[in-house]
Amino acid sequence: MTNAYQPTPDDRFTFGLWTVANPGRDPFGDAVRTGYSPVEAVKMLAEIGAYGVSLHDNDLVPIDATPGERDRIVNEFKRALEETGMKLPMATVNLFTHPVFKDGAFTSNDPRVRAYAIQKTTDAIDLGVELGASIFVLWGGREGTEVDASKDAVEAMKRYRESINYLCEYARDRKYDIKFALEAKPNEPRGDIYTPTTGAMLGFISTLDHPDMVGVNPEVAHERMAGLNFYHAVAQALECGKLFHIDLNDQKPGRFDQDLRFGSEDVKNSFFLVKLLEDYNYQGPLHFDAHAYRTEDLEGVREFAKGCMRTYLILKEKVKRFNSDPEIQGLLQELKHHDAGVPGFDFTYTPAKHQALKAAQFDRDGIGKKGLAYEKLDQLTMEIILGVR
Amino acid sequence: MTNAYQPTPDDRFTFGLWTVANPGRDPFGDAVRTGYSPVEAVKMLAEIGAYGVSLHDNDLVPIDATPGERDRIVNEFKRALEETGMKLPMATVNLFTHPVFKDGAFTSNDPRVRAYAIQKTTDAIDLGVELGASIFVLWGGREGTEVDASKDAVEAMKRYRESINYLCEYARDRKYDIKFALEAKPNEPRGDIYTPTTGAMLGFISTLDHPDMVGVNPEVAHERMAGLNFYHAVAQALECGKLFHIDLNDQKPGRFDQDLRFGSEDVKNSFFLVKLLEDYNYQGPLHFDAHAYRTEDLEGVREFAKGCMRTYLILKEKVKRFNSDPEIQGLLQELKHHDAGVPGFDFTYTPAKHQALKAAQFDRDGIGKKGLAYEKLDQLTMEIILGVR
Amino acid sequence: MTNAYQPTPDDRFTFGLWTVANPGRDPFGDAVRTGYSPVEAVKMLAEIGAYGVSLHDNDLVPIDATPGERDRIVNEFKRALEETGMKLPMATVNLFTHPVFKDGAFTSNDPRVRAYAIQKTTDAIDLGVELGASIFVLWGGREGTEVDASKDAVEAMKRYRESINYLCEYARDRKYDIKFALEAKPNEPRGDIYTPTTGAMLGFISTLDHPDMVGVNPEVAHERMAGLNFYHAVAQALECGKLFHIDLNDQKPGRFDQDLRFGSEDVKNSFFLVKLLEDYNYQGPLHFDAHAYRTEDLEGVREFAKGCMRTYLILKEKVKRFNSDPEIQGLLQELKHHDAGVPGFDFTYTPAKHQALKAAQFDRDGIGKKGLAYEKLDQLTMEIILGVR
Amino acid sequence: MTNAYQPTPDDRFTFGLWTVANPGRDPFGDAVRTGYSPVEAVKMLAEIGAYGVSLHDNDLVPIDATPGERDRIVNEFKRALEETGMKLPMATVNLFTHPVFKDGAFTSNDPRVRAYAIQKTTDAIDLGVELGASIFVLWGGREGTEVDASKDAVEAMKRYRESINYLCEYARDRKYDIKFALEAKPNEPRGDIYTPTTGAMLGFISTLDHPDMVGVNPEVAHERMAGLNFYHAVAQALECGKLFHIDLNDQKPGRFDQDLRFGSEDVKNSFFLVKLLEDYNYQGPLHFDAHAYRTEDLEGVREFAKGCMRTYLILKEKVKRFNSDPEIQGLLQELKHHDAGVPGFDFTYTPAKHQALKAAQFDRDGIGKKGLAYEKLDQLTMEIILGVR
Repeated sequence: MTNAYQPTPDDRFTFGLWTVANPGRDPFGDAVRTGYSPVEAVKMLAEIGAYGVSLHDNDLVPIDATPGERDRIVNEFKRALEETGMKLPMATVNLFTHPVFKDGAFTSNDPRVRAYAIQKTTDAIDLGVELGASIFVLWGGREGTEVDASKDAVEAMKRYRESINYLCEYARDRKYDIKFALEAKPNEPRGDIYTPTTGAMLGFISTLDHPDMVGVNPEVAHERMAGLNFYHAVAQALECGKLFHIDLNDQKPGRFDQDLRFGSEDVKNSFFLVKLLEDYNYQGPLHFDAHAYRTEDLEGVREFAKGCMRTYLILKEKVKRFNSDPEIQGLLQELKHHDAGVPGFDFTYTPAKHQALKAAQFDRDGIGKKGLAYEKLDQLTMEIILGVR
Repeated sequence: MTNAYQPTPDDRFTFGLWTVANPGRDPFGDAVRTGYSPVEAVKMLAEIGAYGVSLHDNDLVPIDATPGERDRIVNEFKRALEETGMKLPMATVNLFTHPVFKDGAFTSNDPRVRAYAIQKTTDAIDLGVELGASIFVLWGGREGTEVDASKDAVEAMKRYRESINYLCEYARDRKYDIKFALEAKPNEPRGDIYTPTTGAMLGFISTLDHPDMVGVNPEVAHERMAGLNFYHAVAQALECGKLFHIDLNDQKPGRFDQDLRFGSEDVKNSFFLVKLLEDYNYQGPLHFDAHAYRTEDLEGVREFAKGCMRTYLILKEKVKRFNSDPEIQGLLQELKHHDAGVPGFDFTYTPAKHQALKAAQFDRDGIGKKGLAYEKLDQLTMEIILGVR
Repeated sequence: MTNAYQPTPDDRFTFGLWTVANPGRDPFGDAVRTGYSPVEAVKMLAEIGAYGVSLHDNDLVPIDATPGERDRIVNEFKRALEETGMKLPMATVNLFTHPVFKDGAFTSNDPRVRAYAIQKTTDAIDLGVELGASIFVLWGGREGTEVDASKDAVEAMKRYRESINYLCEYARDRKYDIKFALEAKPNEPRGDIYTPTTGAMLGFISTLDHPDMVGVNPEVAHERMAGLNFYHAVAQALECGKLFHIDLNDQKPGRFDQDLRFGSEDVKNSFFLVKLLEDYNYQGPLHFDAHAYRTEDLEGVREFAKGCMRTYLILKEKVKRFNSDPEIQGLLQELKHHDAGVPGFDFTYTPAKHQALKAAQFDRDGIGKKGLAYEKLDQLTMEIILGVR
Repeated sequence: MTNAYQPTPDDRFTFGLWTVANPGRDPFGDAVRTGYSPVEAVKMLAEIGAYGVSLHDNDLVPIDATPGERDRIVNEFKRALEETGMKLPMATVNLFTHPVFKDGAFTSNDPRVRAYAIQKTTDAIDLGVELGASIFVLWGGREGTEVDASKDAVEAMKRYRESINYLCEYARDRKYDIKFALEAKPNEPRGDIYTPTTGAMLGFISTLDHPDMVGVNPEVAHERMAGLNFYHAVAQALECGKLFHIDLNDQKPGRFDQDLRFGSEDVKNSFFLVKLLEDYNYQGPLHFDAHAYRTEDLEGVREFAKGCMRTYLILKEKVKRFNSDPEIQGLLQELKHHDAGVPGFDFTYTPAKHQALKAAQFDRDGIGKKGLAYEKLDQLTMEIILGVR
């Protein structure tokens, strides 16, 4: 059975270059390893069965590279992609590492910073398109505050919109076949980040000039930091056609951003996430945005990457079992009621149908008393997850 | 100075009937008092300077009242409103107390429950309109799960939308001058509630048939339970024209729903909230959805209600001070840069303007090094809040 | 294999009477069921393989029962225990439901409340001893504040100690063979509860007159509400000989007290908890303090109780697999270093040994670079938990 | 009035060298400034009215300094202390930055790491004593896990104890006049840290060989990360004589370690903390362990340091107002009941007194009904804090 958990490119697993490049520095400790270089990362990930990689501009090209250096680096990287057959379906831009972004990029009070952020992003879009990306992720890690006196949050929304609208126009003008995916996070590195949840991003997108070009890139850890149900958040995005990309990892709620190996913490929620993606036939990349523990050397980083994919495949198989378990499906069948108890009532409004509804009598006490057998259903689900049925 | 904190109806303060009716029961303890009845509540709140009240259908009319009882109760209540001059700008519906709603109302798996929820809500809309309400709040307290196996979250979104669309059509057909305000909450009483944040509600609204009829009713405690910045959430809603109503109270993050007296916990965030509402001239009701501690008798409940209004007025005065403090305004002025550093660049895309941007050189190291004096700004803000400047 | 998960009294599983009696009321909803009566509970739990039950005084005897009623009820209950062979290893006292305790019991500002709390507790101890209990749990659910102005937290500690000392003297004087187990909780129903963690209780116990008579009763949900690692908390208590009892259930962090079915939420931490209890041969009752979802009728409550025990046994079997998995044990073996690199140094201080230590040279860079293979170890652990190895 | 908020050395304010040296690096961004060097820090802090500084060994002496370099650096630093009159009441050791500590120091699985940690700590104690410190803080930032399979938490407790016992013996042998203060933190940089709360540290201390030599160093941010009431935690430590030192800063609950300027976030809890320290005449250093926002240059860092002290003094004055406010004191007086309602009963056990207690009748319903006026008390407290009374 375990061979079934061996990934292949058909599984569409991708990794950010930064994930396996991570040197294991943290706020209280120095780097513990030299992570994989871009070319090394592509090779190692190809070996273990990944489909592709993604990158921030500066994961590949240093922020102060000359045009000549840039081209040399990019060409070398392209060669690695070609040699391995690895794809690059997504690119993004780093608007957070350099001190110039210390108080935001698109929402900075300083128009020079906003202009530079747009310049840097359009360059990064060019790079992404050159490397084959059809999705461009934007994570506004610095778009927030510690000091709310310093920035009007209403004004910040306007600046944010202005920038995203600009980027959409740029992509349209260039006739790039690219869509944008906005990534939310509640806090860290800022005290509070604007549009802090996937849901808030969906609200924001609806106010853009080209909402069809923009969707979301939900990340497990980011919703979970706020204690939210990630499966619910992704379902909302998917249901309205906005799930353009996804960041898979894991996280304990209510603490610093951990970016743990996928499926290593909240197994149950991860199971429902995989179930959603598989049942609804999500076709985008299954992208891991996580990093190895600080205890690991390069061999450990490789194990980490293998573990992310392997756990996804384990959960995918459990989804199949759940979907074909007769007792579980029997319980679910019992929950499926199809009769509203009002003849002809179909939940769309007409005056006539409403008259019928108004006249209807419901046995609310009787319905309220009936047990729904959710303890049993949940226990059976847990036993699927635990591998004992 | 303290007389300035005496509320009058011009301040537009309103209270839910349920707030001062609250008997002080909690999950581990019995009721400690008989709260104010609807008519008593109207009289007491009028005495202390409130503008009006709001209600759930069953705060006034018991769920099993006959039509005759209903009319008698409503008429008696109307008389109290007339006698006191109190208004009822908002009404809502209770879709959470009765066991029939134990697994959801609009998102229940049982179409009879969904139909009954719509029937009950349209009746509550009628009641609200009869009492003068122009805003109808919907809090889907039971629209969620503990057992994600039991309900497909994608399907739940569809059911939710179907119901809100129905209610909009109903209001249009009746030519009611009423708008809907959706209220989010992350959890409690359900393990997880769908569309758990104000932002998620904004995303959901954009998918409705009549998005113009629907806005949000953010509640301090509900965003703060998830550790989110309430000022930011309200700013996003206000900026896109969706702040139809607001629930004021207070809360410690990361715990059970406390519904504390407004301004009694997170003074700083409350200050920025009041600043937002006042600076942007929010004209809706300032609605308190909180309740007195369980240690209180009726006199304590009255003190609680007075405290909510008084603290709002104290913070409102502090906003004026902040807005006219020369040192603070000087610091803010220094932050206002107007030059993007690219001649002619105004953040709207044209190919020509983009050429100019592409060619621009930004001194990112220089900009990054400049201190922004936010420690000083924040300290001065705190001293305004603490009343020492 | 699944028959192995059938509990028997040898497994020492116990349930609070209140768990299966729970009527499914919550802060926003009415009761949905009539739970099991004490005698019904004993019979049902005996049928499904439990070892025993526990109770608060008022779970069995109403607070206003006459002595005659009390004796009749207790005798009927004893008969049920005898007939079923069920044991009652633990009793406790309800110091939270009645409004008299609204501002605390042992820490109340009112000495009458403190005296009454002691009177009620000594009566409850008598009841517990009569029913065979050797452990008396004290959960100070109301020992806290919302208003820190109202109660001096230093004074509260003194009152708390005074009461526990009193109860110890009482038990000694009566020559009761009983020990006390203190149960911590961070909040709910109070805004903040004193000595909010198991660790804080251990600190408090060390200041008592008879610390040997007093240990802790950690509860999964209570530590997890504060986002703490329950396995670590229990390990600290066990290591210092203070794990007198344990409350098993489950909980999502950072929210209201959920009391979920054991093992239904944080499977990984539950696994390490079971591993701790089994590896260190904990011999106390395995006590479930949880309740069924509000969606359940009596059949669902029974399924809930069965699920708690079954999941414990599933995890217990996984512990055995972990302990005998050659690859995992190989990795653990590699971690076991026994040489401090300083000849003769054994971590106990003598001047001579310290001289040797002071002179030693450690290759800190070399040690720091070595990978520890924790990604692999954790992945293998997850695969044990997921049942795929 | 504002001149009253000018600090002097009599106020006993101290700062960690690392606080004003902080370069503003975070997990997603590079350093934004060169912080104050040790000598610059001493001079700047002296200028603005501080009493002294504290340090980790490596804040002053690089980890790879030769003995000669070490002595030169220390002598230069001593001179700065002498010239400014600044004191160094506390020293500590850095057991977290170097990769050798990536999996713990005193609790590492590797005895070489444990031995090296003890060696490094005893050297740091020598340094602290040389500089005049009488308190030695131990923060075990790496003493925890992400992978509970890797380290037995029971074993970890034993190793921890062994190390602290060693250090006590060392100090005794050297006849150092120094006490140890243990600092708890729930997580970050580790996934979970052992003995995660001040309370857990108190429990641990009671198991040491020389508990009298060891107390706690509670830190605002660390308790608040877990959502705990810091005032309560410090009160427990103070009440049992274990408040040896304190780390003042601020923090939003349920997120990454923010180390915000003291009093800039949770004003209310900070007020009660100051009230505790002042009312109970805490005589240790008032030590700030915080750092300036990443938006600040050196001038901003200085403002940050000034703000910490100033806000403490503002709150200290508010404590005086609270303590002398007749209406508040009147309410508190009403809460002080002195009669237990049982003649002769004084909460100490004797059989005779217990007989009296057992016979007593308490009017529990009457007591339960009485309102306690906490809404009013809390509102008056807030008005003191807000400076409007």
